[in-house]
Amino acid sequence: MVNQAEERLQAAGVELPPAVAPFGAYVPAVRAGRLLFLSGMLPTVGHEPTFLGRLGRELTTEQGREAAAAAARNALAVARRHLGSLDRISQVVRLGVSIATAGDFLEHAQVADGASELLRDIFGADKLAARLVLGVASLPFGVPIELELIFEVAE
Amino acid sequence: MVNQAEERLQAAGVELPPAVAPFGAYVPAVRAGRLLFLSGMLPTVGHEPTFLGRLGRELTTEQGREAAAAAARNALAVARRHLGSLDRISQVVRLGVSIATAGDFLEHAQVADGASELLRDIFGADKLAARLVLGVASLPFGVPIELELIFEVAE
Amino acid sequence: MVNQAEERLQAAGVELPPAVAPFGAYVPAVRAGRLLFLSGMLPTVGHEPTFLGRLGRELTTEQGREAAAAAARNALAVARRHLGSLDRISQVVRLGVSIATAGDFLEHAQVADGASELLRDIFGADKLAARLVLGVASLPFGVPIELELIFEVAE
Repeated sequence: MVNQAEERLQAAGVELPPAVAPFGAYVPAVRAGRLLFLSGMLPTVGHEPTFLGRLGRELTTEQGREAAAAAARNALAVARRHLGSLDRISQVVRLGVSIATAGDFLEHAQVADGASELLRDIFGADKLAARLVLGVASLPFGVPIELELIFEVAE
Repeated sequence: MVNQAEERLQAAGVELPPAVAPFGAYVPAVRAGRLLFLSGMLPTVGHEPTFLGRLGRELTTEQGREAAAAAARNALAVARRHLGSLDRISQVVRLGVSIATAGDFLEHAQVADGASELLRDIFGADKLAARLVLGVASLPFGVPIELELIFEVAE
Repeated sequence: MVNQAEERLQAAGVELPPAVAPFGAYVPAVRAGRLLFLSGMLPTVGHEPTFLGRLGRELTTEQGREAAAAAARNALAVARRHLGSLDRISQVVRLGVSIATAGDFLEHAQVADGASELLRDIFGADKLAARLVLGVASLPFGVPIELELIFEVAE
């Protein structure tokens, strides 16, 4: 056990949804050495989007933050199913946040923090990720957020 | 030899093109430990695009699937040239699929499957990648698809 | 010491700015094994953008090249602060270049070379990265360029 993620998750009252099945010919997560690469995580319950639209048009920054947190919970669900427990994660290595935006949107960082803050609360401030945030033209099924995650797993 | 990719490729009648030379100050692939990172792979023959336009505007989903498969063949050509044989690949770790789209396009997953299904047919269903699919505003030279690939190489 | 990056930097008269503090709940760089993952690097001085706008609209290709070089200098500053010296970098593994574009922009590769050529001049032509170049809809704060970098560090 290298962290107390499961305990913090419970203390924070965060309930993880069932891990979402793939939408195509891929798998939710692949391990290579100590790195666990997750597939793009969306704000859905199962295959049903819980947010639709673009930031700066149909959705507010606050809704974007919530969508990012929802996608992060899906990511945690996939990681737990792959590893058995989130406590095996020694580091959040990289968090990519792709945000469907109108071209004039400027609040990418605030939206991305919706995912980053959840990960910080669960894994601790000493395991913050390197982060990449992009405003993209569109995302699968019309959702506003897609997360990319790479975790490091303890030996 | 850790898989039968070369044999499957031949059985499927898939002919790989010559590996495409870089379009700038970079190299087609870089090895770091057991991971092989490929540069962005496009649907081109040499430096000549074979598909131009955006999904949801100038191109249909079926054309997008074909463009994704063409980019995947270019990726396999680069990997084979770097490694000598595709049989040395122990895992397809990550597949990123960036699709040039109009903002209202929704069929990202079907387009991405054009690449994923080729990789599955060659490497086997037990080597499916973690996948990230984005709809972007534009891609180099006006092509509709760019692939990112990370392979794991057997020791 | 595995390369002469610091000496080349000095010889080229390239001055690195102070490493930019994060814009949210993340860290500038994370090490996992021999890989150093950097957060998205922008053309800013501190938190102040030095370029704003999109390629193909408000900015020329030459301005895009300069913005890419500015973001690369920020990346080098972060890497140096994390590692103590750029001479510890054994390989530039991956360079991602996201460019805010109008949909009809075509000169992505030239813009990306603004970053690639700086990295080549500092680390040498034998350490060129695998490169991924995307045209995105928008980037944080309205900047035109965001870089993703993965370095390999000598043991």
